[in-house]
Parts: sequence; C-alpha cells; structure tokens
Amino acid sequence: MKISRELILVKGFRFGGVNIGLKDESLDFGGIVANSPCSAAALFTKNNFPGAPVIVGREHVADGKLQAIVVNSKNANVATGVAGIEVSRNTCRWLGEELNISPVMILPSSTGVIGRPIDTTKIRTGCKILANQLGEEVEYSERFAKAIMTTDHHPKFAHVVLEDGTKILGIAKGAGMVEPHMATMLSYIVTDGDLNSNELRAALHQAVNESFNRISIDTDTSTSDTVVLLSAGYKKTDRKDFQIALNDLCCDLAKQIVQDGEGATKLIELKISGAQDDKSALLYAKSVINSPLVKTAIYGSDPNWGRFVMAIGKVFDFPIPLENLKIYFGKGARRVCLDAEHSEDLTLVEALRPLLQAKEVFIEIELGMGTSTERVWGCDLSEGYVAENAYYTT
Amino acid sequence: MKISRELILVKGFRFGGVNIGLKDESLDFGGIVANSPCSAAALFTKNNFPGAPVIVGREHVADGKLQAIVVNSKNANVATGVAGIEVSRNTCRWLGEELNISPVMILPSSTGVIGRPIDTTKIRTGCKILANQLGEEVEYSERFAKAIMTTDHHPKFAHVVLEDGTKILGIAKGAGMVEPHMATMLSYIVTDGDLNSNELRAALHQAVNESFNRISIDTDTSTSDTVVLLSAGYKKTDRKDFQIALNDLCCDLAKQIVQDGEGATKLIELKISGAQDDKSALLYAKSVINSPLVKTAIYGSDPNWGRFVMAIGKVFDFPIPLENLKIYFGKGARRVCLDAEHSEDLTLVEALRPLLQAKEVFIEIELGMGTSTERVWGCDLSEGYVAENAYYTT
Repeated sequence: MKISRELILVKGFRFGGVNIGLKDESLDFGGIVANSPCSAAALFTKNNFPGAPVIVGREHVADGKLQAIVVNSKNANVATGVAGIEVSRNTCRWLGEELNISPVMILPSSTGVIGRPIDTTKIRTGCKILANQLGEEVEYSERFAKAIMTTDHHPKFAHVVLEDGTKILGIAKGAGMVEPHMATMLSYIVTDGDLNSNELRAALHQAVNESFNRISIDTDTSTSDTVVLLSAGYKKTDRKDFQIALNDLCCDLAKQIVQDGEGATKLIELKISGAQDDKSALLYAKSVINSPLVKTAIYGSDPNWGRFVMAIGKVFDFPIPLENLKIYFGKGARRVCLDAEHSEDLTLVEALRPLLQAKEVFIEIELGMGTSTERVWGCDLSEGYVAENAYYTT
Repeated sequence: MKISRELILVKGFRFGGVNIGLKDESLDFGGIVANSPCSAAALFTKNNFPGAPVIVGREHVADGKLQAIVVNSKNANVATGVAGIEVSRNTCRWLGEELNISPVMILPSSTGVIGRPIDTTKIRTGCKILANQLGEEVEYSERFAKAIMTTDHHPKFAHVVLEDGTKILGIAKGAGMVEPHMATMLSYIVTDGDLNSNELRAALHQAVNESFNRISIDTDTSTSDTVVLLSAGYKKTDRKDFQIALNDLCCDLAKQIVQDGEGATKLIELKISGAQDDKSALLYAKSVINSPLVKTAIYGSDPNWGRFVMAIGKVFDFPIPLENLKIYFGKGARRVCLDAEHSEDLTLVEALRPLLQAKEVFIEIELGMGTSTERVWGCDLSEGYVAENAYYTT
C-alpha cells in the first residue's frame, strides 16, 4: 500500500471550495458532503479555549454520525463568546437547509485569526453558494483543499488504496501554531470503507497518536485543531490493512504539514532511542525538536552539535550520564556519530555540515538507558517564521 | 536606594579583562580577585549536562569561601569530557600560582560554543597576562564586563549603595539560551558588606528567584549559568536593606539581559494575577512569555490579542472559564483591557497598537480564579534571533 500525494475520487463524497469574501478573493469556504449519513470519528485540540466550531463539532460527532463538514478560513471564530457559538450553529443550520441535512449531522471548522468577530451575512450567503458548487471530481476536492488554507503555501492531500480496493483520502492544512499535543491542525479523511464509528474512533486515535501528535512547528497549540474521519460504508474493508494504511496516510499528511511549516526550509526527523521509558523518551524528543537553538542551527546547517547536548540536558527530571550520550546525524553509510569523547575531532564535526544541508535532516539520539524509542518530526526556524507572524493580522 | 547602571569601585576587589586569542582579538579572559578570602555563595544551571567549570565551581564554593573568579568567553567548555574538567581545574591552579591563592578559592566560568575543545596553552598564558593586568578602578571592571560577553551587544552592570554605605556591584552577561529555570547566564556580584556565607546564600537565593529565574529569551537553558556573590566584609551592613538592594540589583541585571536578548527589540513585562495558586501562575506566565506567536506579534506591534488567549489555553492542566479572562495592555491611563465580550470592538483592538510599539511592553493577564500573582520578563522574537543563531559556530 503506497501513499500517493494526489487527489482521488472516493465514492459517496462531494467536495467544494468557494470565495465568500471573508478577507480577500482567495477561496475561503469549503465543504465535504456525503450522499448519505456516514460513520464518523473526530479528535480535537487540547487547548482550554477551543474555538466555537470545536465546541459545536464535539456535540455533533458525539453519536458517531456525520454527513457533512463545513470549513471557513481567514477567521478562527475563537474567543468570540456566545455570539461565536451561535455563528457555528447557524453555519450548520444554513448549510443543512440548503442540502436537506440535519444541522447536527454537520461538523463545522474555522481557522485563521483568533478573537475577531466573523461576518455572519457572508457565511449565510456562502452556504447557498457552496451548496450549488459541489462535485465528486478531483477539481472539487482540490478547491476544498485550497479553501481551508491559511498561511500554507500549497494544499495538502494524500490517498491510499488498500488491497481490497478500499480508498482513503486525506486533506489537511497546517502552517503555524502546531505542537504535538493531540490532534494538531485541520485534517479531513474520507473512506468508502465499511467501518462503524467505534472502529473509526479506535483507528483514528492510534493513527493520530503516531502522526499528528508527533509533529511540532512552534510549540504553540492551536485552539482550532480538528481531525475528522468519515466512512461511507460502500466497501467491505480489511480492518488490519485499514489501520496500517490510515497510520501511513496520517504520517504523510503530518510530514506535509511540518514541511510547509511557517518559514520552514527543512524537515527534521528525530529518533530518540535507548530511553528508560516511553514518557521520558517523548520529553527528550520534544525538548530537542522544539529547541529554538537546535532549530536555528539546522536552518543555518551549522554543525553546532553541542546544542543537542544542551537540549537533552534541559529535561531536568531525567538526567543521564554524559558518557552515555551518542548523537547520530544522517542515514545509512554517511551516518556520523558524535559524543563527548570525540568532541575534539573537528573532521567529524565538519562532516555534519553536508548532512545538515539536506532538505530532510535525520537525527538519532541514543541515550543508553533502556529500550524505549520515540520518533517525532519538526522543522527548522528561519527568519521567514518571524516575518510571517509579526504582522499576521495587519 | 537607587539602582545605577554604572560601574563603581568596591573596596577589596580588583578586576581585569584581557585578550588571549581564543577566537579573535576581542577581550575573552577576565577575572575578579579579592584582596583576602571572601564569604561567598553561588547558584548554577539546572541543565543535566553542566559545563566543566560549573562542576568545578560547585566544589570550590561548597565551603562558602572564595577569593577569585576567572572567566573565559568564546568557548563554554561543555561536553568536553574528562579533558574539559582538567582544563577548568588547571585554570584555577595556574591563576592561583600567579596570585598566590589556593586553587579551591577560585571559581571558574566559561561561556561560548558548546562541545569544542578549549586551547589550554592560551589559557595558561592567559593566567599570567591577566594576573598582571588587574586593577580596582572602573576601567578594569569595564574590561572584565566586556571579556565575559558573547553575543551581548554591550556590557551589563549595575550598582547600588545602601544607606549604611555598603556597596553592591553586579556584572552580568546574557544574550541567548536564557530561560527561567534557576540561575540563567553569568552574573558576578561583589559587596564590601560583612555578611557571612550562610547569609549570602539565603540572600542570593531569594534575589535570584525574583529576578534571573523570572526571565526568558528563548526557553533554552544554558549548561553554563552561574551567579556568584562575594562579600569582602569591610562594612557593617543592615541585613534587611541588603536583601532589598540585592533583589533590586538582580532584577535590574535580569532586565538588562532580556533587553539585550539575541535579536530582541523590546522588553516585555508580564504580570499574571488572579491565579488559583503560585504554581499555576508561573505556568501561565511561562506559557505566554515563551510563546513564539506572542513574541512575534509583539515584535510586529500586531494587536493580535487572540494569541494571548491561545497561550493561556495551552496550559492544559489548569483550565479557566474564558469569560473570566481579561488581558490588559499598557500602564496607567492608557491601559486597554480586552476580553471575549469586547472582541468585536475593533477600536479597542486598534488602541493596542501604539502600546505594542513601545520599547517596554506591559501586559497583565487577570484570570479571576484566586489571589496568586507572578511577574516575568521576556523579549520579542525577531529575524535577528534567527540570523544570530543560524551560523553561530561558523
């Protein structure tokens, strides 16, 4: 089962993306509509101030059934009080009226600036426009993928076809405010497989934990993060294969998000091995992948391996002996290992430079304390991140 | 008692700063030498891989007595194995021989790049040169202040004179890898007061907790952080006044460090009030002051107040009702308050912009949950931080 970064037609689902003028003339309002009610599962942000759509979405998916998803970009509808919740409920109601679907069968999402009121007249008109511009073909799913983008540079999607013919298609957006706590960003996954909502929930939980929960762009956790999985039920599906395919698909979408992180120029894959337990393995991994000084050194391809030592050392609760620590850069035959004993070998340090210049940087940190491992993905920190975020609402 | 950002002669102490060619021709080797043994106290980094000088320094200050401090910049002597420890011990031995002081009465510090061997021949020669270029006058303490700088743009010092005439002088360096966990950066404080080492230890602990432990530049905790307080014992000193003066002096030095943080263009003072307890108050404060999206918005003077909401909300373990949250910007008559109820008031949002354009940005976040408060200082995140750190060793 190979992940392909192309769109594909999935039986039973129509898509759409339109412009309703929330900010400028780019696509800003999109929907996924199933021909009939689907089994559904969703995971949401852990941020304590979730956006209004997250509050409404949690209610609507609680019974494991959904028939549509409606998303606006340009405005996150977060910290907008009772009025914001009302907008999200109305969005579902208005689109439901157009499509003859019960509002509680629709999951709403919003992404964009926080703390600004959303233009309800535009949303109301938008529901009418969107309902008339839905289609099964990939040009429609591409418009959906574009409509949910914020600072993303390109739309993100991937699909996989199982051996039994079941298709899974995922469409995501990311860019900033991304940190590995629970679901992170917007991601919508549809399948023609026949899984029920309990099966979907379990499968999504496992896949998200291995993928979206293991990426970080900037340590900030969005208030709007949502991952939804809809199953139309046309195909008899092998459960084991489905899980493997879903895991791979989510990992691919997660990596796409990190690769297109705000200002990112490189994808970093970090493996922690030899940790004493899973909890500490994840703490070490996060400390390194989130360290601004590690991220800037990778951006500059600077072989400043001491910063990795610092980042492991600032996990105060889990000290390890320095002589245990081995830091590997690169993969395969070109792999270079650095440790305290070899810090005097400047040839070794210089050998890092070309490995750090690659578009994908692989690092493994071996702790020599046990057998637990952890893998996370992140990106470098460039001037571009600052430039994109300094004047975001301006 | 007024803090002055000028150097002052303190009876009993000589200073020096020289160039020994560790990297270029700038001052890179400095010392503080007392005329006789002093009471002393010190606090060090909590990083689990402390630099060799920190390991040696902890031993030497354990008995509460020191007579000298020796510091090199350009190389942190961290992750350099047994050889690194040997260098730090030898530095104390060589300088001790020149000055006729026992090596265990000398506290060593190093700051600069991590994981590179240090040139011992240059250090050995440096001890001879330094021993012959010590003086009491402020031109000597200024040379010391310059010799300990790394990416600092200017030397940092402050003094205070107590009503009873006791003088306290502090000299610090900061710039990057600064995060509020324990002592953060190098800071040397001398006084002619008559406090014993137990009194110094208690006083330093309190002062550091209110100052250096409350600043953050980039969440990365250095392996070399050291704060030392030496007392020559010439003056009979009022203990209460000394504590107040020391707290103020450390706060001033801490703010100087943040103001000159790598790439920093603004000082941010953040107060959390109305927290349920002290622990959560500090967690909220750190979450906001360390958020890259908050820091970039302040850099761009972007009135994106929703990012503060996000940063409070990502303290997952301590949820608070959104309707409780009030965010104040500015001080005095120009203070502006924003909350979920007023997010529609764009005039209010626009009123933030001039407050964010100031060189010192004041923010108070009121949680309405209890009576605990916390105050921290940080800086904005600019392209300059990335530029300074991307090619640090190159």
